[in-house]
Amino acid sequence: MAAWSSTSVASEMTVNGNMMHLPLTIPSLLALAASRHGKSCRAMAGAGTGTATARCGAESIGWRRRCSNWVFAVRRQGSELVASGRGDVRNRAAAQRQWQGDQVATARTLRRRADPSAFDRRQHRRSGSVKTIQISKYGRPGEVIDLVDVAPPDRPGPGEVIIAMTLAPIHPADLLLARGFYGVRPKLPAVLGGEGVGRVLQAGDGVALKRGDRVLVPNRYPCWAEQIKIPATGLFACPPDVPDDQLALVSVNPLTAMLMLDESRLTPGRCFIQNAANSGVGRAVIMIARAKGLRSVNLVRRQELIPKLKSIGADIVLLEGPNLKQRLAAEAGAVAIDAAFDGVAGESTAQLVACLAKGGTLTSYAGVSNQPFSLSPTEMIFRDINLRGFWLVDWLTRTAPEIVAERLQSLVEMTRQGTIRSEVAVDYAVEDFAAAIAHAQKGEGKILLRFGTRHAA
Amino acid sequence: MAAWSSTSVASEMTVNGNMMHLPLTIPSLLALAASRHGKSCRAMAGAGTGTATARCGAESIGWRRRCSNWVFAVRRQGSELVASGRGDVRNRAAAQRQWQGDQVATARTLRRRADPSAFDRRQHRRSGSVKTIQISKYGRPGEVIDLVDVAPPDRPGPGEVIIAMTLAPIHPADLLLARGFYGVRPKLPAVLGGEGVGRVLQAGDGVALKRGDRVLVPNRYPCWAEQIKIPATGLFACPPDVPDDQLALVSVNPLTAMLMLDESRLTPGRCFIQNAANSGVGRAVIMIARAKGLRSVNLVRRQELIPKLKSIGADIVLLEGPNLKQRLAAEAGAVAIDAAFDGVAGESTAQLVACLAKGGTLTSYAGVSNQPFSLSPTEMIFRDINLRGFWLVDWLTRTAPEIVAERLQSLVEMTRQGTIRSEVAVDYAVEDFAAAIAHAQKGEGKILLRFGTRHAA
Repeated sequence: MAAWSSTSVASEMTVNGNMMHLPLTIPSLLALAASRHGKSCRAMAGAGTGTATARCGAESIGWRRRCSNWVFAVRRQGSELVASGRGDVRNRAAAQRQWQGDQVATARTLRRRADPSAFDRRQHRRSGSVKTIQISKYGRPGEVIDLVDVAPPDRPGPGEVIIAMTLAPIHPADLLLARGFYGVRPKLPAVLGGEGVGRVLQAGDGVALKRGDRVLVPNRYPCWAEQIKIPATGLFACPPDVPDDQLALVSVNPLTAMLMLDESRLTPGRCFIQNAANSGVGRAVIMIARAKGLRSVNLVRRQELIPKLKSIGADIVLLEGPNLKQRLAAEAGAVAIDAAFDGVAGESTAQLVACLAKGGTLTSYAGVSNQPFSLSPTEMIFRDINLRGFWLVDWLTRTAPEIVAERLQSLVEMTRQGTIRSEVAVDYAVEDFAAAIAHAQKGEGKILLRFGTRHAA
Repeated sequence: MAAWSSTSVASEMTVNGNMMHLPLTIPSLLALAASRHGKSCRAMAGAGTGTATARCGAESIGWRRRCSNWVFAVRRQGSELVASGRGDVRNRAAAQRQWQGDQVATARTLRRRADPSAFDRRQHRRSGSVKTIQISKYGRPGEVIDLVDVAPPDRPGPGEVIIAMTLAPIHPADLLLARGFYGVRPKLPAVLGGEGVGRVLQAGDGVALKRGDRVLVPNRYPCWAEQIKIPATGLFACPPDVPDDQLALVSVNPLTAMLMLDESRLTPGRCFIQNAANSGVGRAVIMIARAKGLRSVNLVRRQELIPKLKSIGADIVLLEGPNLKQRLAAEAGAVAIDAAFDGVAGESTAQLVACLAKGGTLTSYAGVSNQPFSLSPTEMIFRDINLRGFWLVDWLTRTAPEIVAERLQSLVEMTRQGTIRSEVAVDYAVEDFAAAIAHAQKGEGKILLRFGTRHAA
């Protein structure tokens, strides 16, 4: 294990405004993170913010760990490792005991993940059962989503693969589907999960992929399961230098962002506006748009998100609210806005339309406000506004798998190069799916499910 | 004057539920109508409906006449002449006196219109003033619209024509413009008028049109004036066998209907839905769609409009209201509806969208409900619905005059062949513009302004 400097390590940190004494936490984590990169880290205390920062000489991937009543994360921010915690600290002693106890597993897991040969030692059982998250009726996610043990998939047929899932995010769409409010209502019982990353466990005849290859599981195949069997068409081996948690989030939000930008036909230098700019799609829109030379106007609901989004390439960031058009003009002068991307609906849609130039197009891809659009017909008629819905599932249905794979590969490459990056809050073991889903419903960053830990060596 | 049979002439008729003794009315009108066609007419009483029907051997044009407190119309319906009346009959004696007194002018006007050489005898004065209807401020139509005497246009320059206007309709758009709520706000004072028909009074150098040619005045040129000077580009001489009142209504509503149908790219046999089906645009949509082999579902607000719209070619006519999709299924089974045309907005738009098949397009061309759209974003996203505004002025702005003329000529030909027909309620002399505008605001059929009557021989 590489050396780490303890001179500036936080021995106390503030979690949700409560000072916690966590002497092992940050040094342990930073040491483990550093061990993965073979570099020394210097840790220092955050200024009462619930974060501790560690400079690290190497690029580092994010890493996060959950205890039963709080979460802790280490992630890369530029050249720094940032460790942050959040949780319920009403019982400090219990939390601390849990955290400390967790260090043993933490160290084992990190060491295993740092070793590229770890997968082959994981001894996925081909007999026995695999844990699968499914619904057997539609209703509130907390009430209808179950973890069940099912038989593992049969031997893969020609052109098929069995994938051992590693990580899969919980998207609002997954919870909408559980409620029965999504665009499709699969036959019950139905496995959930919209995308993820896993490794090939077994490949059928005629499949170029080999055991151990990391693959994205695209949106067509429910994947909240330790093992799934799907067609290999359009699957590809991902490069080794992209972290799992980033790969797990490529197939839905960044793909939606890329396709909406493509379909808007904006040419370099042209400007668009979007709300929900700090969402997964919103952030991907900003980063892909910057790479395409487009200018973005971004709406958020909290002041502190303004510098955050500017740091990932947003040109203009404004708070949602009245007089948006006037505030935009005050900040940016006369800007012709050719397209709008709407993830909110309700009043926000009318604000976006008001900012659009004549002939502009608004693309609605989500309605997190749960409000209907309220739009003036004269606005639509006299200003020649076009309003369209975008649903990734539709695009996937009508697009050849080779084209889908080509788009996903380009997104993986953008991820590898750091052009785009998803923001992950925390991951939960599949056994803790209930806590993960409860956390995801708070809408505070992406929550991932981690599969297969019980099979690990 | 041709003979007419008085054996079955209505000597009494019901107007708005009141029996009126109008001994001269129907025979006089039918005789005059017949005289125009050189055929005898047989008149018979309507069955207490406020209408009288006259079979006529020839194709006949509509004709209508206004007294100060009621209106009377003769129009063609298939091979029949239908005379109908409507108005305020609280003072029957006064109404009857006015009507009878009006017969003299009626006869003179009809004879003049029946004579193709009448125009040359009209002696339009090239000196003096021309009556023009304009606004000098924006506000309520009844308060801001004035009739003013202005100097007649100068001699036409090369490529220009002076047109003596004959008839021009009052459209809701004209009144919206007066209120300042239209898509453009011209510099004041501004002449009103969105379309009409007139005759060439004087042609500039290089103009192929000659004095007396009847021309449509398309939507770009304000035309509520006895004389206007406009570029001759795109103008064409209309065939003689199409009545003025039909020509006056070709350039806005039927053109809007034709373009919306064209842009919907519906192929023969495919189905669309529209509200405001009895409006000028709605009726034109029905008739043009039938000629194109399309199937129409039409929404109206009054039961009595159902047979009326079926008689002009509507396939399905339903009352606006709840459970529209279910009622449509009950009447027509599973129908894939690919397009919707919305002239109402508000709740009605959501009803149209609910009936659309996945991937369908809704075109909004008016919002007579004065309500905003209220639409579910999930409906738009999961069912891939496209919502667009259509404004004729935009199309005219971006389209070459030759293309505009080609579309208008095809509509004139469809009008000549009886494929399409506008429904005119009544015309008013330009001097009675205030009454005409008040009448138009009731929205009971198209009201026309008649120009140039004071110059008639």
